[in-house]
Amino acid sequence: MRRAITGFSNPTVKLLRSLREKKHRKREGLFLAEGLRLLTDARDMGRLPQTLVMAQGRDAHPLLDELEAAVDANGGEIIETTDDILAKITGKDNPQAVCGVFAEFDTSLAGVDRHAAPLWLVAQAMRDPGNLGTMLRTADAVGAGGLILIDDCVDPFSVEAVRASMGAIFTQHLVQTRWEEFLPWLRDGRGGQLVAASLREAVPYRGAPYARPCFVMVGNESRGLPEDYELACDLRVTMPMKGRADSLNAAVAGAVLAYEVLACLEG
Amino acid sequence: MRRAITGFSNPTVKLLRSLREKKHRKREGLFLAEGLRLLTDARDMGRLPQTLVMAQGRDAHPLLDELEAAVDANGGEIIETTDDILAKITGKDNPQAVCGVFAEFDTSLAGVDRHAAPLWLVAQAMRDPGNLGTMLRTADAVGAGGLILIDDCVDPFSVEAVRASMGAIFTQHLVQTRWEEFLPWLRDGRGGQLVAASLREAVPYRGAPYARPCFVMVGNESRGLPEDYELACDLRVTMPMKGRADSLNAAVAGAVLAYEVLACLEG
Repeated sequence: MRRAITGFSNPTVKLLRSLREKKHRKREGLFLAEGLRLLTDARDMGRLPQTLVMAQGRDAHPLLDELEAAVDANGGEIIETTDDILAKITGKDNPQAVCGVFAEFDTSLAGVDRHAAPLWLVAQAMRDPGNLGTMLRTADAVGAGGLILIDDCVDPFSVEAVRASMGAIFTQHLVQTRWEEFLPWLRDGRGGQLVAASLREAVPYRGAPYARPCFVMVGNESRGLPEDYELACDLRVTMPMKGRADSLNAAVAGAVLAYEVLACLEG
Repeated sequence: MRRAITGFSNPTVKLLRSLREKKHRKREGLFLAEGLRLLTDARDMGRLPQTLVMAQGRDAHPLLDELEAAVDANGGEIIETTDDILAKITGKDNPQAVCGVFAEFDTSLAGVDRHAAPLWLVAQAMRDPGNLGTMLRTADAVGAGGLILIDDCVDPFSVEAVRASMGAIFTQHLVQTRWEEFLPWLRDGRGGQLVAASLREAVPYRGAPYARPCFVMVGNESRGLPEDYELACDLRVTMPMKGRADSLNAAVAGAVLAYEVLACLEG
């Protein structure tokens, strides 16, 4: 189905705008992703938006034509609208010329085959959507199986997190769980090494005895990991801190560690 | 000098609020930093705010008392105000109980002694204040001499960049320059290796022949580095990209590379 919408008060526009808030995303089971590249990545992964929203004044692009045809063939809805309305929907002053509405995925731990990848990233109580999206992007780059979110993390389906993931939200396995569920799952006898950066009885992170499947865990941006989480790790590693600070940005720490794990597992 | 301000329309409050905008920061030559930890780091580095703004309902803290005494002894101004006004000044719903107004530093290339540190970070046209602050924080952690900003970067004195730097804005040498100035400076015969991640005639980043002083350069978040900048590098390295994406978040790429350089230079 195809239609044009030019009024801000149109109920569909209101619905799409509401998806910028978590409570509305949860109620509808939907989220927004913007940009031709993200949507093309999603399509390549077999994920098509239910609704495709395009700017009337967009430039023509063969990938956009393909996307449009695929959504149409799949029974999805195609909406053409003004730049202003698109900006309102995405909350961005200069929106990309297209955005899509997707059904949220199953993010349960049950679907994870831990042996499908050499490493996994784990984030505990991560609060910043940019950091969360960046972790997804890093997970993609290091060939991780996915990102496992523990405890009260920011919503991975927020527009900001999806944007920062640069499409990795569609390529990475994404799990939302809690420590009380994650730890028993990890210890169920099927293997898995839990690793975190720590100052407690830790070994240098460089060349540490990482083992597959390796779960690289980082903690909350302000508080770091709870002590009992650190103590439950199979391996605690330290990273050089040459300056005044005793910590790195959480997404940076996770990435430096993940690249080291990758090099050691492959080396 | 010490005074209490409780009105939003007070001219000092208006001035402080205006510092959230770049044009006002440049006009006044001032910037804002918030939080006791940041301000204590600044003091330890010999930098005191001209004005210290404290919430009336703050909890007592010995470090805050010391800071207050130091600002007072230095002839600075101390303002007590409401939580609401502090929130307006910092633009944060839950502001920390204290913020300071600092004079902007000299950020010219002339002041850099390249041999003072084994490595330096370089960011070209970096647009995201969170990324810029994170780069400063990483520079501190790896023991870099500082962060050199090339071309049109976001203002490093923005509240968001200062916040993300976690105090490293006070500990790291910060330079704002342009490529046309930076490259001749680097090639003036005093040494310095320029390194960037690249796909062009590059060697694996792991264990590459890094040399002191090593300048690790990352490009703009969307476009990466211009081709001629890459070609001007002494060393181009590749990082594994196992997934669909061909790049990392700029601050993440810089950090992974900087930690590798550090390990190789020390190893």
